Amino acid sequence: MEIAIIGASGYTGGELMRLLLQHPSADVVAATSRKLDGTPVASVHPHLRGLTDLVFRNTEAGDIDADFAFLAVPHTAAMKVAGTLAERGIKTVDLSADYRLAKDIYEKTYGVSHTAYFEAPYGIPELHRDEVRGAAFVANPGCFPTGATLAAAPLAKFAHTIIYDSKTGVSGAGNTPSATTHYGNVGDNFSAYKWTTHRHLAEMKQEVARLGSTARCYFTPHLLPVNRGILTTAHILLNEPMEQDEVEALYQKFYADEFFVRYQRPTLAAVRGTNFCDVAVESEGDRVVAVSAIDNLVKGASGQAIQNMNLMCGFAEDAGLRSAGMLP
Amino acid sequence: MEIAIIGASGYTGGELMRLLLQHPSADVVAATSRKLDGTPVASVHPHLRGLTDLVFRNTEAGDIDADFAFLAVPHTAAMKVAGTLAERGIKTVDLSADYRLAKDIYEKTYGVSHTAYFEAPYGIPELHRDEVRGAAFVANPGCFPTGATLAAAPLAKFAHTIIYDSKTGVSGAGNTPSATTHYGNVGDNFSAYKWTTHRHLAEMKQEVARLGSTARCYFTPHLLPVNRGILTTAHILLNEPMEQDEVEALYQKFYADEFFVRYQRPTLAAVRGTNFCDVAVESEGDRVVAVSAIDNLVKGASGQAIQNMNLMCGFAEDAGLRSAGMLP
Amino acid sequence: MEIAIIGASGYTGGELMRLLLQHPSADVVAATSRKLDGTPVASVHPHLRGLTDLVFRNTEAGDIDADFAFLAVPHTAAMKVAGTLAERGIKTVDLSADYRLAKDIYEKTYGVSHTAYFEAPYGIPELHRDEVRGAAFVANPGCFPTGATLAAAPLAKFAHTIIYDSKTGVSGAGNTPSATTHYGNVGDNFSAYKWTTHRHLAEMKQEVARLGSTARCYFTPHLLPVNRGILTTAHILLNEPMEQDEVEALYQKFYADEFFVRYQRPTLAAVRGTNFCDVAVESEGDRVVAVSAIDNLVKGASGQAIQNMNLMCGFAEDAGLRSAGMLP
Amino acid sequence: MEIAIIGASGYTGGELMRLLLQHPSADVVAATSRKLDGTPVASVHPHLRGLTDLVFRNTEAGDIDADFAFLAVPHTAAMKVAGTLAERGIKTVDLSADYRLAKDIYEKTYGVSHTAYFEAPYGIPELHRDEVRGAAFVANPGCFPTGATLAAAPLAKFAHTIIYDSKTGVSGAGNTPSATTHYGNVGDNFSAYKWTTHRHLAEMKQEVARLGSTARCYFTPHLLPVNRGILTTAHILLNEPMEQDEVEALYQKFYADEFFVRYQRPTLAAVRGTNFCDVAVESEGDRVVAVSAIDNLVKGASGQAIQNMNLMCGFAEDAGLRSAGMLP
Repeated sequence: MEIAIIGASGYTGGELMRLLLQHPSADVVAATSRKLDGTPVASVHPHLRGLTDLVFRNTEAGDIDADFAFLAVPHTAAMKVAGTLAERGIKTVDLSADYRLAKDIYEKTYGVSHTAYFEAPYGIPELHRDEVRGAAFVANPGCFPTGATLAAAPLAKFAHTIIYDSKTGVSGAGNTPSATTHYGNVGDNFSAYKWTTHRHLAEMKQEVARLGSTARCYFTPHLLPVNRGILTTAHILLNEPMEQDEVEALYQKFYADEFFVRYQRPTLAAVRGTNFCDVAVESEGDRVVAVSAIDNLVKGASGQAIQNMNLMCGFAEDAGLRSAGMLP
Repeated sequence: MEIAIIGASGYTGGELMRLLLQHPSADVVAATSRKLDGTPVASVHPHLRGLTDLVFRNTEAGDIDADFAFLAVPHTAAMKVAGTLAERGIKTVDLSADYRLAKDIYEKTYGVSHTAYFEAPYGIPELHRDEVRGAAFVANPGCFPTGATLAAAPLAKFAHTIIYDSKTGVSGAGNTPSATTHYGNVGDNFSAYKWTTHRHLAEMKQEVARLGSTARCYFTPHLLPVNRGILTTAHILLNEPMEQDEVEALYQKFYADEFFVRYQRPTLAAVRGTNFCDVAVESEGDRVVAVSAIDNLVKGASGQAIQNMNLMCGFAEDAGLRSAGMLP
Repeated sequence: MEIAIIGASGYTGGELMRLLLQHPSADVVAATSRKLDGTPVASVHPHLRGLTDLVFRNTEAGDIDADFAFLAVPHTAAMKVAGTLAERGIKTVDLSADYRLAKDIYEKTYGVSHTAYFEAPYGIPELHRDEVRGAAFVANPGCFPTGATLAAAPLAKFAHTIIYDSKTGVSGAGNTPSATTHYGNVGDNFSAYKWTTHRHLAEMKQEVARLGSTARCYFTPHLLPVNRGILTTAHILLNEPMEQDEVEALYQKFYADEFFVRYQRPTLAAVRGTNFCDVAVESEGDRVVAVSAIDNLVKGASGQAIQNMNLMCGFAEDAGLRSAGMLP
Repeated sequence: MEIAIIGASGYTGGELMRLLLQHPSADVVAATSRKLDGTPVASVHPHLRGLTDLVFRNTEAGDIDADFAFLAVPHTAAMKVAGTLAERGIKTVDLSADYRLAKDIYEKTYGVSHTAYFEAPYGIPELHRDEVRGAAFVANPGCFPTGATLAAAPLAKFAHTIIYDSKTGVSGAGNTPSATTHYGNVGDNFSAYKWTTHRHLAEMKQEVARLGSTARCYFTPHLLPVNRGILTTAHILLNEPMEQDEVEALYQKFYADEFFVRYQRPTLAAVRGTNFCDVAVESEGDRVVAVSAIDNLVKGASGQAIQNMNLMCGFAEDAGLRSAGMLP
């Protein structure tokens, strides 16, 4: 299957190419970039040298010639090309925020008008597999909402309050230098940011509601001095106390058939580079601590996008995504 | 004033010596260690080379000849010598857990009998200055309870639930190699530990109660890939919503006269190596996020111990403790 | 092909299993450990959870039932079982130092007698492919000698002096906690170790001689605050000055047919997790700086071991080894 | 003494203010910045909050009212104001490169004309104390040349070749975000840069010549994933072999009276935040490995600048500079 990556110069673009090299049915035929037209992909992504001869091209969506597309562009840019791709019959996973939320919530959260809205499946396959399977367009979830939602999902409907305290690696801020990503501000350091105002909270609330829960949701992200990974500590306040055996059994059962969700004490290292989400849970009665770990660029972005592609196109769900992480 | 450091080979011992080198009235005359008798201090603490000629001695408490002592030994070891020091008229700050809690809480929390109990002031000077001033023996608080309590104190009595989500540097685990401190398990990694069972929770609860609050307290610590520092994110659920202006004013007023508590967005880097606790607060109505940052070895241990010593002995409270941190 | 990993609890054992999961013809049927008999592999290597059901067994070499074995045991332990494996017709790659050096050099360097010596190919395929191909037993090179030798090989015979200044990640010291691997001694730190006495120098000298060079060789390793990777800066003093064009062409030609050696400015990140060795060179006339980067656990150990296995068994040389690194 | 810091918004400016807070005779009265006029210093340097009320001012050199000035501006900017400060009788330490080299070498190395040249002492006090003492203007050395020269100085005249292989923390690149300082390019990574072309080599050669040596000098810097510190491994090839006892004695004697040079195995951690340079040496006959560690922002910049100020103004040489580093 021929694949185009639209906006391929960033970390998620590089990660899509890295992972698709291992996919038995995927052939990346186009990597677009406005600024890098003519530049070999391996010049920007040196880890891919020797494995790809692709060259960035500044191709418009109307000129893309492929069976499938990944949109790895900023929000508001995706909505401008989604329709064109659909008209041309190119199935698409959109990694931007443009189709993740209900229209009114999107416009309020991002402070812009949505000029090309339609409903799309929200691509956490573990929760929405049936909608994703066979879809022509899927909205790929945000990195924080993926880890947070998978941490809390089994218990959401038993809770009155869920506080997501998340810690992310720096790659979540992209590969453009800024004060946020300046080594002197991050190395051997740690801090909270957007303490109560991060946009991803809207996705978290939407998913909690879809799980049949009325729990109040809160979210505070933090910045870790690591490249990759998000560990989310979900502090879940229950309506009625539950014992450890009970909550653990609930999680084991909820994820029993999910290859990409493993029940074990999460660390960033065990999932780094992989599409796994490690989850575990510990109860102290009325509060349960549920912790998840994902690689923000894989299960939190490009890996989950490929998992969605696999479902949309009838491939094995884990095709190209079975690699183990590295430890250490 | 002549000072003995009992148990001087660890990180807190080294930090006491580092800081006391800058104290105008302090002269460290003894550094004890069971295992390192005869070894120069600078062999274990190479950053002190050229600044001290002290040699570790395996001196028993009954043979200590000093005006003041710091107990930097494990819990249960401190209670065995506290009485001896008192009899000899040596004022003491105990950095262990032995005198921080009410006797029954201590015995339940640490699973041991307390064989030499007495009440001691709990040495967070910002909250208990009057009790510390002039005392002969002070219990120095745990690292997590110091940062957590200073984060939540101004709001405690307005809250029904306080969840402390703390992230600590590795030095909190001491300078003896272990799986916990093994670089391959920590470097470029992140994880939660003792999700619901850390002993420091008992101190946090005790302090919240002393602040006149009936809030339920919860605590989950995490391990950062950094050497020093604790950042605590206190998720405070209020009885009645409060606006940002109101909570910020509350904090500004509460700490207005405190040199060591600074109101600014906390990062580990800005307090590293110092006795400062940086605090700030952000409200979203019914939840307030209060964040604090301390250096776990300074305000979380040795620095606060010296601050207590200063109060006990009538020195300026900031004597020896005015150094700025390093950034970056 | 059925494979046994003898000594599978360490980092190189874990890495062999990680990489062999991606090999089309390899089936790991045994993972031995003296201490962990009965423990699931995924308990020690949590990144492999969900991907393997192997359990560690304390199996003696005489009871190994496999077509191929990797010896991932300490030096002196390998020589005790190499003969047994050979008698049983089990082809073997030995990751220890026992068969890398001439007997007298080995005994002098390691200060022990070699009780079961025989000659074995030295498994850097880029330099000794013909000897490795079809061999029944191959000595896998040390991590430092692999990177250093590949950096200097094209220029060795033109040089009178080669100084290898190498910087390694902490995983080279293994997964047993020690002062060397203690986070407090490594994190945000950097130092040299074994300044003139590291045993790997003997391998480097042997390879330089085999390249027809009489250059004097020196070696100083350093410890980086990273998990993986070795970057070697080879300072090469030439008999006659050479221009940049000339040395660069020399390197390009020398490695033109080598899939695993890429000519680009090396960084640890671009090779992390992979079997690639990135190399580049810069001349200032009489001194040339040649720099290489490898992952010490892959091209420096387990990956090169599989590359050797592929040659020994007639598989494609890159089978199981084509994964890209991760960046960031 | 009233002090002005010209160009105070960067890391070296911040470091000057941090260190001068501990100086018994120094009073920083002006901190200039073109871009930050009116901004409190503590907004840019949050570690100084509570310790200084200074506000950045965009003051021209001709309007500076102070007894002493530190020039912490880029090269070519310093030469434009040095004369003005001299005319106004303001003693000055220049942290830029403008007065470190002979005029012709400077112009060739930096590719610019020097429009206001005069000779100034080169401020490594351990080597040029007599010239610095009482001078009105001192050129503060580069960070790499300081550590490298102190590593090799005792042996320089016995050597025919000196190769400086240096590894620096990221703060050497300043506090402006760039690809070089982007966390994703540095974190958990390592690389060489300017392999044969770093400008600091010119200072190193100049100092080696002043030491009476004709040794050829080479220099390759590398970038560490740490904030601070430079470790230089000087590979010194001797004219005649020397034994370990001999070289060690040479170093011990050479630095016997130097408070800021300590003979011990260097690590970055032991000198971090301090003005110390730790040095040690190991011989293998014809090659000697001499290693030094400094904090690039202290002994490599602001600390040495204050040490020079102390000598120029008749203060104790270690005034304000006796703080120990932090370990860990």
